[in-house]
Amino acid sequence: MKNTFGNNLTVTLFGESHGQAIGAVLDGLPAGFEIDLDLLKEDMEKRKAKGALSTKRHEADEVHIVSGFFEGKTTGTPLTLLIENKSQRSSDYAALKYRLRPGHADWSAFEKYGGHQDYRGGGHFSGRLTAPIVAAGAICRQILSAKGVEIGSHIESLHGIEDEKFSSDLPTLKEQVLQTRAMEFSVLNKEAASQMEEAITNAAKELDSVGGILETAVIGLPAGIGEPFFDSVESVLAHLLFSMPAVKGVSFGLGFGFAGLKGSEANDPIYSANGSISTATNHNAGINGGISNGMPILIHTCIKPTPSIYKPQASVDYRTRENVTLEIKGRHDPAIIHRARIVADSLTAIGILDLWMASAATKSFENRY
Amino acid sequence: MKNTFGNNLTVTLFGESHGQAIGAVLDGLPAGFEIDLDLLKEDMEKRKAKGALSTKRHEADEVHIVSGFFEGKTTGTPLTLLIENKSQRSSDYAALKYRLRPGHADWSAFEKYGGHQDYRGGGHFSGRLTAPIVAAGAICRQILSAKGVEIGSHIESLHGIEDEKFSSDLPTLKEQVLQTRAMEFSVLNKEAASQMEEAITNAAKELDSVGGILETAVIGLPAGIGEPFFDSVESVLAHLLFSMPAVKGVSFGLGFGFAGLKGSEANDPIYSANGSISTATNHNAGINGGISNGMPILIHTCIKPTPSIYKPQASVDYRTRENVTLEIKGRHDPAIIHRARIVADSLTAIGILDLWMASAATKSFENRY
Amino acid sequence: MKNTFGNNLTVTLFGESHGQAIGAVLDGLPAGFEIDLDLLKEDMEKRKAKGALSTKRHEADEVHIVSGFFEGKTTGTPLTLLIENKSQRSSDYAALKYRLRPGHADWSAFEKYGGHQDYRGGGHFSGRLTAPIVAAGAICRQILSAKGVEIGSHIESLHGIEDEKFSSDLPTLKEQVLQTRAMEFSVLNKEAASQMEEAITNAAKELDSVGGILETAVIGLPAGIGEPFFDSVESVLAHLLFSMPAVKGVSFGLGFGFAGLKGSEANDPIYSANGSISTATNHNAGINGGISNGMPILIHTCIKPTPSIYKPQASVDYRTRENVTLEIKGRHDPAIIHRARIVADSLTAIGILDLWMASAATKSFENRY
Amino acid sequence: MKNTFGNNLTVTLFGESHGQAIGAVLDGLPAGFEIDLDLLKEDMEKRKAKGALSTKRHEADEVHIVSGFFEGKTTGTPLTLLIENKSQRSSDYAALKYRLRPGHADWSAFEKYGGHQDYRGGGHFSGRLTAPIVAAGAICRQILSAKGVEIGSHIESLHGIEDEKFSSDLPTLKEQVLQTRAMEFSVLNKEAASQMEEAITNAAKELDSVGGILETAVIGLPAGIGEPFFDSVESVLAHLLFSMPAVKGVSFGLGFGFAGLKGSEANDPIYSANGSISTATNHNAGINGGISNGMPILIHTCIKPTPSIYKPQASVDYRTRENVTLEIKGRHDPAIIHRARIVADSLTAIGILDLWMASAATKSFENRY
Repeated sequence: MKNTFGNNLTVTLFGESHGQAIGAVLDGLPAGFEIDLDLLKEDMEKRKAKGALSTKRHEADEVHIVSGFFEGKTTGTPLTLLIENKSQRSSDYAALKYRLRPGHADWSAFEKYGGHQDYRGGGHFSGRLTAPIVAAGAICRQILSAKGVEIGSHIESLHGIEDEKFSSDLPTLKEQVLQTRAMEFSVLNKEAASQMEEAITNAAKELDSVGGILETAVIGLPAGIGEPFFDSVESVLAHLLFSMPAVKGVSFGLGFGFAGLKGSEANDPIYSANGSISTATNHNAGINGGISNGMPILIHTCIKPTPSIYKPQASVDYRTRENVTLEIKGRHDPAIIHRARIVADSLTAIGILDLWMASAATKSFENRY
Repeated sequence: MKNTFGNNLTVTLFGESHGQAIGAVLDGLPAGFEIDLDLLKEDMEKRKAKGALSTKRHEADEVHIVSGFFEGKTTGTPLTLLIENKSQRSSDYAALKYRLRPGHADWSAFEKYGGHQDYRGGGHFSGRLTAPIVAAGAICRQILSAKGVEIGSHIESLHGIEDEKFSSDLPTLKEQVLQTRAMEFSVLNKEAASQMEEAITNAAKELDSVGGILETAVIGLPAGIGEPFFDSVESVLAHLLFSMPAVKGVSFGLGFGFAGLKGSEANDPIYSANGSISTATNHNAGINGGISNGMPILIHTCIKPTPSIYKPQASVDYRTRENVTLEIKGRHDPAIIHRARIVADSLTAIGILDLWMASAATKSFENRY
Repeated sequence: MKNTFGNNLTVTLFGESHGQAIGAVLDGLPAGFEIDLDLLKEDMEKRKAKGALSTKRHEADEVHIVSGFFEGKTTGTPLTLLIENKSQRSSDYAALKYRLRPGHADWSAFEKYGGHQDYRGGGHFSGRLTAPIVAAGAICRQILSAKGVEIGSHIESLHGIEDEKFSSDLPTLKEQVLQTRAMEFSVLNKEAASQMEEAITNAAKELDSVGGILETAVIGLPAGIGEPFFDSVESVLAHLLFSMPAVKGVSFGLGFGFAGLKGSEANDPIYSANGSISTATNHNAGINGGISNGMPILIHTCIKPTPSIYKPQASVDYRTRENVTLEIKGRHDPAIIHRARIVADSLTAIGILDLWMASAATKSFENRY
Repeated sequence: MKNTFGNNLTVTLFGESHGQAIGAVLDGLPAGFEIDLDLLKEDMEKRKAKGALSTKRHEADEVHIVSGFFEGKTTGTPLTLLIENKSQRSSDYAALKYRLRPGHADWSAFEKYGGHQDYRGGGHFSGRLTAPIVAAGAICRQILSAKGVEIGSHIESLHGIEDEKFSSDLPTLKEQVLQTRAMEFSVLNKEAASQMEEAITNAAKELDSVGGILETAVIGLPAGIGEPFFDSVESVLAHLLFSMPAVKGVSFGLGFGFAGLKGSEANDPIYSANGSISTATNHNAGINGGISNGMPILIHTCIKPTPSIYKPQASVDYRTRENVTLEIKGRHDPAIIHRARIVADSLTAIGILDLWMASAATKSFENRY
């Protein structure tokens, strides 16, 4: 389904960058869950554009819960999250309507919608649509957290600058994951963080932009979640993560690094200690055959450099078919990866919760539980 | 849905490695399509284990179409593909039931199914399940081919050995794609092919295995296919590709390479020639905002080394929780990537056809068509 | 899916009777369709409570389209319909929270949501949720109308008073269907209309309520729409119609009357005139094997008497488990069938459009079209 | 989805009357459930044509479970049910290909599939497709039975002959439901049974057929199952029941009888006894607001007279458009309702189990459980 995802838990996304409002409907939530609105707001803050590293379009992004929420708790019926657009400057876009921005959806949208798409600020394709995703994900993450599951991301690399990886030591990893929840600019190594911030600032100065890779960890997930084929943990999470604008690669554990290894190097040796099974390494990122094995799930998401750059670019006028030199106006991000990381957390939370519910549905009819 | 995927076109997968039969139900096909059974057989041949590079389990993999096919054509009702298992040697697995094979789904399956899974030969998790996927995909690819869309894959890299990439020149690319359809071992560069075959043979001698990366191209797809968010071309194709056993990474175009670029390098300049719009480069792999733009779609799929290796490995007896040294018997592949490439083609065909149908559904209610 | 329905065209419903707003997200619409907002408003008017025949809760039911609509036309991305609640009188319900209203969802909702449901005015179970259904259906009906398909309903019977049936003569039927679109109280026979209005007024005086049966006709639908099994026209329309609160029976054509007939009486003789095929009778309501045959589709929907009555009723306090005599306050409808008819039209339009799109998707890959 | 239904539990149906085999894939089953194959066979027997009351096409209908079943238990992966067609006499149909049988899907199938449908014996539209439904439903019913839920149907009326209704006394009802499971010809009142059998025999003699109404009861279902709107218990069960060939009406409890009542007569008074809540009557059939309240669910399904009759009928040759007099050959049922009742039980079981799983999924994340 186009803008609805999930089975037991569904998210329906709507809105355009310069329309009246954007939002999401979250259906299938357990009833009686007390949403921590401050925590939800904190998550929204992490996605917000602030300071020199982001666009100058500053939106309040206040989340209105217009249904499914009563006396501070979920009702179990569809919960609707509404966010008003307030800082549109549509005039920036009027001249651009037919001038296709390279790397953007302008061209493909014209082909798909025949010119009827709301082109202002990217319309429905805008990164603004990730705001309701964060709001929906924040609720899912709170539900998961109550079950002992934590999710966190850091910028693994940005324009060649590498952060340290998430630790393979479980207690350290847990600490790191919780730590990322508190960080404004989520990078584990402080020096790497400064270098990355500098790289973004430099890109901005050059009227250019930079991209990078996020590493996301899910810890505390029980074994046995996920399905063998079409609803493998990898399939569902990749489906969601590739929905995020600008994502061009998703991998798990060693990811593309598996291509250079032998089986004896790639397999994670299994051992038992005090009756509990574990693996010595976690190259497979806690997933075998599409199903969680109880080890941390580790995801890499590559986010391309923001396509909106101020540098002149070769392009075309869709209507006249003339070749033109395009100079983008408007307010844009020299990088979005630092804002995107909470979006990755959110999409991951939505996917994990839905997969878990599917497992719970089946297991509730088995005697062993 | 667990073993069913798609909206207008759905594939339902069933069977286990050592059960009576495996198969798939393909629903939503156009009526009256004449299936080329020889071509279907050719595709099945490409997946078959043959010679020194693959497992010694040789299955005839004869495809029986038991429904939805009448007088040589599709009827439009569900088409069922049935493949009998004939060369099982289940005795190889009896001793293994509780001994978890590292890198395999044994452990996670125990956690999910409580020991009720058919453990023989990997059961439902077996690579054998990709045989009905190939049969289903073969039909979809024939339908796409009749519309001018061709799909092909080659081994982009194997254990560090690199093939040349698909050409950025469109006529050359088309030639290459058609060429891969004829190749037994799909590698563009002959020398790279010999080195890769040698690497597989060596891995087999060392009782080990190797992995690699596939590059898949879709050419001839019209612009405007795909959806902005949850059914982006990337989302749907990644969902399907991650369903294939052993896949740990999927990327599009420059993929993870985007992380090191600037926006000005990553964006594909757009130009017009003779009234037709095109891009000078194709870093974004023919997809912007989740929607096709008419340029070739290029996908990279990382396949980890076969987890079944003959080398002794550290493992655990699930029942007794004892640490054990595992020596796998049975018949296994020192590499699966050369057999997996037709699976990648097939899954891609299924996803592309379903996405196209969704577009066609909507467009048939628009005046401009 | 709980509050989302459809495949190519999906409707997601949200809101509660006394919450801030109710609404729907309509996804999969063709792009560039010019919505006639006056017509949409007219449809909303038909559902509105007015005069002595309905509740005294009078809502403006102004529809705000907050996304997917740009410069007077659909964009092709999710279209969101938002309706604010303005005339809540929640104090009427505070005392009622634990007192289960017979015939209502109070009891089952307590069991499902554990007391966390928004109980005010029936919450998410309220007939108010049919307002966004009408708004969504209005758009679908306009799209169908542009393709020559018209939908209309009349009150076939109300508390024993029978209207004349829709005509079996096609031109007359078309006239009648268009006529219902203009009627405030949709009854074909004027005398029957007065009697029905009187029956409603009398029920109100007796602090009671009445129910009835709607007959809905779909004319102009091409043959070949619908699917043999789970997406039969009957299955999809019944699914939607049974979603409407208070519906307890749905039938097609002769419906339950088939039980008393012989095959020779029930079958519709087929004849050909001027190369065009038709049936002499239309007992099967234009549907054979779940698929449209081009004749009018005729649906009967039974709507039970409004469960909210002012008469004292035997009930229970859910918390204390005490038997109580319940006297309902609040503002209620002595009948809803005259307001429900546009809801039946709307749900039918949604189902027909989605089924048609599925057919269009498949057919676009067949040579014969 | 066309031939797949369900969310957590899905059924995919395939096959044609005169093809090689028909079958179903049942996915989402709990692992480790021991299927009673004798009971499954008993259910299949109830659907079989036997004696003078049914067609002379006698199929063994042996069910082969080709996947998802290991060592006598479900594995949790897709369970495939395969039934071979053995008694086809396709020659009966060759002459009929273009001669549209009134009341059948021949005409609409031509319009949908353009002549590519397998027309022999009704092809995919045949009542034979209900055989795999019964096999799938038998497994679901066994799972429900283990949870205390029993389902049974009787012929409520046949060509004007009325059986007694299911009792409103719960212990008696339970006895009746279990009793129907043992009956070959499921009618509660013996005299009514003889009259009905006679009516069928007479219809056969007259080269005609008869129809009727089934009453289905679901007992023991906990309160709180079902969803407020699109997955109401009524919506889901009606969707499934209308998938059964020849069904033209579905209602719940008083059904269309509600149209003549007042609210004070229609509402079920609620009372409490020993801390347990119940209703004095059960007009609403155990469902309020789409959700079960713990009382028995009662469904009425109208099945039209078999359209295949030997009497000459007016029809058309689809190819030549000539008016013809049609005399159907082949082997047909003078009534199918006595065979259809186990199909109604089966579809009901599939729907109830899927709805229950959805509830279980959500509730497993609520503290109160």
